[in-house]
Amino acid sequence: MRVGIIGATGLVGQRFVSLLANHPWFDIAYLASSPERSGRKYGDAVHWVIEGEIPENVRDITLAAMRIEDIYRADLDLVFSALPAKIAAEIEPKIVKEGMTVISNSSPYRMEPDIPLINPEVNATHLKLLYLQEERGWRGRLVKVPNCSTAILTLPLKAIASKACIKKIYAVTLQAVSGAGKEGVPALTIIDNVVPHIPNEEEKIQKETKKILGEIGNGNINPAPFTVKASINRVPVLDGHLIHIFLETCEEVETEELIQALHDFPNNEIKGMNLPTTPKRPIIVRYEPDRPQPRLDRLAGNGMSVTVGRIDAENKTIRLVALGHNTIRGAAGTGILIAETMYRKGIS
Amino acid sequence: MRVGIIGATGLVGQRFVSLLANHPWFDIAYLASSPERSGRKYGDAVHWVIEGEIPENVRDITLAAMRIEDIYRADLDLVFSALPAKIAAEIEPKIVKEGMTVISNSSPYRMEPDIPLINPEVNATHLKLLYLQEERGWRGRLVKVPNCSTAILTLPLKAIASKACIKKIYAVTLQAVSGAGKEGVPALTIIDNVVPHIPNEEEKIQKETKKILGEIGNGNINPAPFTVKASINRVPVLDGHLIHIFLETCEEVETEELIQALHDFPNNEIKGMNLPTTPKRPIIVRYEPDRPQPRLDRLAGNGMSVTVGRIDAENKTIRLVALGHNTIRGAAGTGILIAETMYRKGIS
Amino acid sequence: MRVGIIGATGLVGQRFVSLLANHPWFDIAYLASSPERSGRKYGDAVHWVIEGEIPENVRDITLAAMRIEDIYRADLDLVFSALPAKIAAEIEPKIVKEGMTVISNSSPYRMEPDIPLINPEVNATHLKLLYLQEERGWRGRLVKVPNCSTAILTLPLKAIASKACIKKIYAVTLQAVSGAGKEGVPALTIIDNVVPHIPNEEEKIQKETKKILGEIGNGNINPAPFTVKASINRVPVLDGHLIHIFLETCEEVETEELIQALHDFPNNEIKGMNLPTTPKRPIIVRYEPDRPQPRLDRLAGNGMSVTVGRIDAENKTIRLVALGHNTIRGAAGTGILIAETMYRKGIS
Amino acid sequence: MRVGIIGATGLVGQRFVSLLANHPWFDIAYLASSPERSGRKYGDAVHWVIEGEIPENVRDITLAAMRIEDIYRADLDLVFSALPAKIAAEIEPKIVKEGMTVISNSSPYRMEPDIPLINPEVNATHLKLLYLQEERGWRGRLVKVPNCSTAILTLPLKAIASKACIKKIYAVTLQAVSGAGKEGVPALTIIDNVVPHIPNEEEKIQKETKKILGEIGNGNINPAPFTVKASINRVPVLDGHLIHIFLETCEEVETEELIQALHDFPNNEIKGMNLPTTPKRPIIVRYEPDRPQPRLDRLAGNGMSVTVGRIDAENKTIRLVALGHNTIRGAAGTGILIAETMYRKGIS
Repeated sequence: MRVGIIGATGLVGQRFVSLLANHPWFDIAYLASSPERSGRKYGDAVHWVIEGEIPENVRDITLAAMRIEDIYRADLDLVFSALPAKIAAEIEPKIVKEGMTVISNSSPYRMEPDIPLINPEVNATHLKLLYLQEERGWRGRLVKVPNCSTAILTLPLKAIASKACIKKIYAVTLQAVSGAGKEGVPALTIIDNVVPHIPNEEEKIQKETKKILGEIGNGNINPAPFTVKASINRVPVLDGHLIHIFLETCEEVETEELIQALHDFPNNEIKGMNLPTTPKRPIIVRYEPDRPQPRLDRLAGNGMSVTVGRIDAENKTIRLVALGHNTIRGAAGTGILIAETMYRKGIS
Repeated sequence: MRVGIIGATGLVGQRFVSLLANHPWFDIAYLASSPERSGRKYGDAVHWVIEGEIPENVRDITLAAMRIEDIYRADLDLVFSALPAKIAAEIEPKIVKEGMTVISNSSPYRMEPDIPLINPEVNATHLKLLYLQEERGWRGRLVKVPNCSTAILTLPLKAIASKACIKKIYAVTLQAVSGAGKEGVPALTIIDNVVPHIPNEEEKIQKETKKILGEIGNGNINPAPFTVKASINRVPVLDGHLIHIFLETCEEVETEELIQALHDFPNNEIKGMNLPTTPKRPIIVRYEPDRPQPRLDRLAGNGMSVTVGRIDAENKTIRLVALGHNTIRGAAGTGILIAETMYRKGIS
Repeated sequence: MRVGIIGATGLVGQRFVSLLANHPWFDIAYLASSPERSGRKYGDAVHWVIEGEIPENVRDITLAAMRIEDIYRADLDLVFSALPAKIAAEIEPKIVKEGMTVISNSSPYRMEPDIPLINPEVNATHLKLLYLQEERGWRGRLVKVPNCSTAILTLPLKAIASKACIKKIYAVTLQAVSGAGKEGVPALTIIDNVVPHIPNEEEKIQKETKKILGEIGNGNINPAPFTVKASINRVPVLDGHLIHIFLETCEEVETEELIQALHDFPNNEIKGMNLPTTPKRPIIVRYEPDRPQPRLDRLAGNGMSVTVGRIDAENKTIRLVALGHNTIRGAAGTGILIAETMYRKGIS
Repeated sequence: MRVGIIGATGLVGQRFVSLLANHPWFDIAYLASSPERSGRKYGDAVHWVIEGEIPENVRDITLAAMRIEDIYRADLDLVFSALPAKIAAEIEPKIVKEGMTVISNSSPYRMEPDIPLINPEVNATHLKLLYLQEERGWRGRLVKVPNCSTAILTLPLKAIASKACIKKIYAVTLQAVSGAGKEGVPALTIIDNVVPHIPNEEEKIQKETKKILGEIGNGNINPAPFTVKASINRVPVLDGHLIHIFLETCEEVETEELIQALHDFPNNEIKGMNLPTTPKRPIIVRYEPDRPQPRLDRLAGNGMSVTVGRIDAENKTIRLVALGHNTIRGAAGTGILIAETMYRKGIS
């Protein structure tokens, strides 16, 4: 399958490039970035900041302009979008209208009822609603990747929801600087410091979590009935979002039973599909009292596993700590996993 | 008043020295540290790591051995203890038995029913229970400074408790490396990382908060009736503990009313005493969405104020973020404020 | 004296504001920043990032546009410029042409023969050349503050030059992130990293050092006859540039003699002027093997002293390490010291 | 070959374990650490701090006591030592006396005339002198790995020495915290700071560089005739030592010629041996103005390549910046490369 990446020189764009360079199913056939870079070779135009070198087979691809005609002419099966919100809001619908499928990491449209917001192990079934997009007059399809923290948070929540009805969720995040992009957080702001604020982040976590864990009903997604309260921090960590979670449940759960459910996370949604990007275990349970830690656990399962630890349950209250790689599980990796899921399900 | 500091070369010991060097009421008349340092001048023996230089008038004081006889002979009115837990557990009762008052930052005995655990603006009245110590055969008195996070947390909790009955508290801390002492956290552990674990810290926060906000009754302190759940982190910050707090209350509170209560924190307990170490405002409310921050707010009120922000209340749930200096408000500063309170109240 | 600050909301602008807010001679009478901020109050428009709060008496000053007419109409005795290089190159000459004195921290014109580049304790005599500017048709005067590293480096060099003829200088700098401004260095670039590059910085150090230590002759400054080789680094430090220096000298010097010369740095140039911003000692010698350090020494002499250590001399080679605050001694502080020097000398 | 590692739980010990776990020639047959850990399984006793998990095939090896009899009985072909200096000084000679070969990363004996100090691509020929050790009555052999900075520095020096006679070397290092071991540098010392001191480090670099680049003559190593001046820093970087180098040469060299020599570094000493641990290029030349950087370049050549950049030469002065992984090229990796070289040469 021929795939394109738009917003290919940003930080999430680089992750898409890195993860797709040797992908068994997808070939990078098109890369686009901001207009002033178009016409230059990817290897010359990008300021590469992620680990490893720029993949050899991508280095010489010429960056295209991001015009609809060009994208259309590139004859792509799929477009991955890592565009900034404002540009995404404008361009993505135009591409989809022309008949192409876009899997997008950008925030606009995530909460629209007919736009599936997918974390494959959690809610691949929500892809069923894609047909609703025909009513917009779109010939293609638009699928959204969740906000980075939400993608990490919803995996253990789904596992826990199989054992207990959740009434209320409190989440406090410690988010890495890479979440704000290549130049998003100035060093002068964050050295010897933490900042308890990222614009709109708490709202995204609160709303998206309820949508992802919601149920399909009446041709719609009914948001999960629990309350989510999020309080966030930016911390001086390069990659990896850590989330402290407290859950109030309807009935008592045993800590051991909970650990088992997390460890065995059945992954019904995409189980048995043998997707190239699925990690062996979507959730890894660590038993050491000082884990998970961003630097030690962020690359577990090639960045696609969420590591959980410090699990305990008493008095209908569960506490756990979850850690995931914010630009892999929290962005590009999940985008690719969505594409693989759709491919296997025959959706396009 | 002649005061002594035991454990004077450690990080909290250095804070005591720094804050007492020019104190209007207290004169440093005795400094002790580990046996191998005794006999050396303080300025030569200490590895000074806090901001500013070693105070001139302390530099030449000779470090004493920490023997009871020596302490006794020094004719002190008061001893501040910044000893490690194990040594404190053994030595502090011996000093008190001999008739001296010890104000101690160490954790042992904090939860004993007859040992007041004091954050002066919150529960100075608990000092009333000191007479109970006579039953131990002690001729002196022992008062404990709360755990660093607890000292910071209980100030806004007290203010809020005046407006709403608190049912449940969730607290997630982001704690500075200085909390572990001069060499407590290796750089290799914490650069590009956070660690969601400090031994026994969560238990301390949970229990001490209930004791400090408890009520005197029947010659005892009845712990506050709410539940406290704490989940903690060590972060790459030098000084300043940040705490994300969610509170569940019995009834609705208005955000504005809450902000007012925090801002006006009446500080009944020690109001009007004009103590040298009281900050102008024990609680400072910041309205910017990205405050408080450790580096920008830790020295507010000379390190004795707790800065709060991101306050909102809805559906009987309050969210706020609090920040305090962990070795000033969270240790030495509060120790000195206790001493001042006792002095004004005529307790010794 | 009524002074203005142009570029007042940037990092160096904030230092100017902070240092001038309570200055005994100078009153802030005019503040300007980028056009989109003009008309707003300083306290609302600035993103304040330096220690302490915005000075009360500055908070409510309305930011002016940076038009020549406005500056002229403000009836200023002096303008401090903290403008970005490109804007400074265009605007500063226009202001000077109109008859105003500008003391500028920006790099353009620093190497022009008729523009004094002044580090007051080192080369205040170079101000003599200001009359040359009349030939440009300027009615005012333009004086330049050296590059941050050069301002720090030239103080100990001047002291050493009094004891030995210097043949060659090798300098390796470890520069703080604040040197690049509020948002100059992304956290993603510098956490767990150092970057051995800052555009044009090495050239600036090499050329400016020779000009500052040069001698007046024939109505011109003859650059010092030694060679300077600089190699630079950006490091994850907030404030304070550390410089490792190797000097090759014509003859042997004794280490002790050298230490004496640094310690006694006679400061002939502005000695006895009693300027408000002169530190008690322009150079502070530390004898501990692990000093100077940025975090511990950057605020020595209120940020105006350069701390040196690790001094030794053998085989006509001197080694020392110097540390100064890059936005005080290396920028705003030196700018103000120049103004004070000119005022005392009756130049304006 | 059956190999043992003594000092196996420290940071360099962990690197030895990690690099040897799947080595094609060497099998880990013995691991020893401090007495209190002996008898425990490696996986339980070690506080693993390097990237990746503990190798599966090492996890269950029981830690031995470090008694000579035990080592002897383990029937090893080779022992790698990562012991602290003091213990190494005592134990290593005893093991060698018993007939075993020890390749040691510890500093004692490095400067002894009959102990080869080897960086294989630079001076593998120095192994010839091993026969001298018979005079000590040793039945085995002792070979030393250079100090971490020296191992990195001597690779480009050797390449340059092939093009120009070197008169003087100035080196300023920016060294990672891992160089001091797992708990060597407290976070409180190094966050927002650099420290221009590591005990004895400068002396080691100065002396060892001259020995490694020395020539064999008269059954001895004549140190290289140039002068080395080193000035060092500890910086808040996890892994990777960066070194700024200035070289004074007897005659002019062209920058281009120099780059060529570094790029083509012929590696005569061990060329053609096809050793498993040799990197494809011992020296990698980067042309970007902001490279090398610790985080981006430390794992080049699996941590065995030294990356150089910022190369220029003029007026008989060369400037370059070199970067290497301090616990791989600067310690365990070079130790293993020495073992491979000796094995190929038939020395044991």
